Amino acid sequence: MNLLLLEEADFIAPDRVVLGDRRLTHMQEVHRCEVGDSMRVGRIGGLMGSAEVLRLEAGEAELRVTLDQSPPSKLPLTLVLALPRPKMLRRVFQTVAAMGVPRIVLVNSYRVEKSFWQTPFLEPEAIREQLILGLEQARDSVLPEVVIEKRFKPFVEDRLPAIAEGTLGLVGHPGNYPPCPRGLDEPVTLAIGPEGGWIPYEIELLGKSGLQPVQLGERILRVETAVTALLARLF
Amino acid sequence: MNLLLLEEADFIAPDRVVLGDRRLTHMQEVHRCEVGDSMRVGRIGGLMGSAEVLRLEAGEAELRVTLDQSPPSKLPLTLVLALPRPKMLRRVFQTVAAMGVPRIVLVNSYRVEKSFWQTPFLEPEAIREQLILGLEQARDSVLPEVVIEKRFKPFVEDRLPAIAEGTLGLVGHPGNYPPCPRGLDEPVTLAIGPEGGWIPYEIELLGKSGLQPVQLGERILRVETAVTALLARLF
Repeated sequence: MNLLLLEEADFIAPDRVVLGDRRLTHMQEVHRCEVGDSMRVGRIGGLMGSAEVLRLEAGEAELRVTLDQSPPSKLPLTLVLALPRPKMLRRVFQTVAAMGVPRIVLVNSYRVEKSFWQTPFLEPEAIREQLILGLEQARDSVLPEVVIEKRFKPFVEDRLPAIAEGTLGLVGHPGNYPPCPRGLDEPVTLAIGPEGGWIPYEIELLGKSGLQPVQLGERILRVETAVTALLARLF
Repeated sequence: MNLLLLEEADFIAPDRVVLGDRRLTHMQEVHRCEVGDSMRVGRIGGLMGSAEVLRLEAGEAELRVTLDQSPPSKLPLTLVLALPRPKMLRRVFQTVAAMGVPRIVLVNSYRVEKSFWQTPFLEPEAIREQLILGLEQARDSVLPEVVIEKRFKPFVEDRLPAIAEGTLGLVGHPGNYPPCPRGLDEPVTLAIGPEGGWIPYEIELLGKSGLQPVQLGERILRVETAVTALLARLF
């Protein structure tokens, strides 16, 4: 935790918060905070800054906050991701939040196991928890938007064209395709497939909606690694 | 597992192997192999190719192998990594093996907790197990070399200069440094710090041995994510 994120409910005055959960535990056990110490904070959805510990007790801490810094800018990107297996999904949420992805669309694909859609990690509170871990890691205060699209075809045919319009549309896909471009400034819509990859029909449909395949070489990467590698190369 | 890796001990003839461990379980439960099926294989430290299932029983499988393909090329890189916490270490081994790093030096740093050096995940067999998972994922048959350097100063002063000589020497480090370069063809020696980063003394000593700081922006990434992001950007 490189940034302590503050919820609306923590505020007891415009410049005062009271905390009493895992964040307090972390302050005490990892940072070994004492009264008078200062730490980096951010208001979820708002500014970042610093906080001074005014009071520290077993069950709660009171901090005076000064919020005067903008969060880091996000990538100009919509990430369309075939739903990964649950364990991977949690880490992917952390990774994309940490890397500054502003919008993620989780979509079905032929090679997504149906059972993956039943995972409790897709509950809004579970998603938010992982996104916050990523923001705390990277020092960002703005949650990415997560959209869930359980049906591939209606999403790709009806809604993806409007998302991709005016952006560079790319699909990460192994094969005889152009290499993934590097160091872009323009907005991108990037689709990343499931373990085992998209099927040809999906590649074709994504292409009709404006997303063209690009490859990262012959090595097959886990989804989480592929997401990080593609984003690091694109921006 | 996108590639079945074969050990020397599996061979009962130059073109025959008998398997009976987790690889057999994987063949049966994930790939649902039957006699006559073909699968991708690689000989550890040797060539890759295909294998035909000749015999499949509860306890073992016999395969006829044809090894006629070179493994994918490795990155022109030595990665010097401050020892991550044990849970992260295991994933980092998989990631670097999957991404094609040929040599990893695990080094101490001021911010590496001493207890991390006690982890059983540093036993040679445990390291090899994780590296093999990475190779199986990426379809590569050549294990990276892993060097363990428990003392920072003697390594950086006495051995790092010879490693870095004739390469571009870089240290991933947040701060007011040049951005990490992109799309290199030349050999690189890259050092990546622990959670919390290198201390100034370490940056100075790495610099004297030929490694200059570069940064990836203001977001602080987990070690595993930083490794992937730096490699994807450099090569």
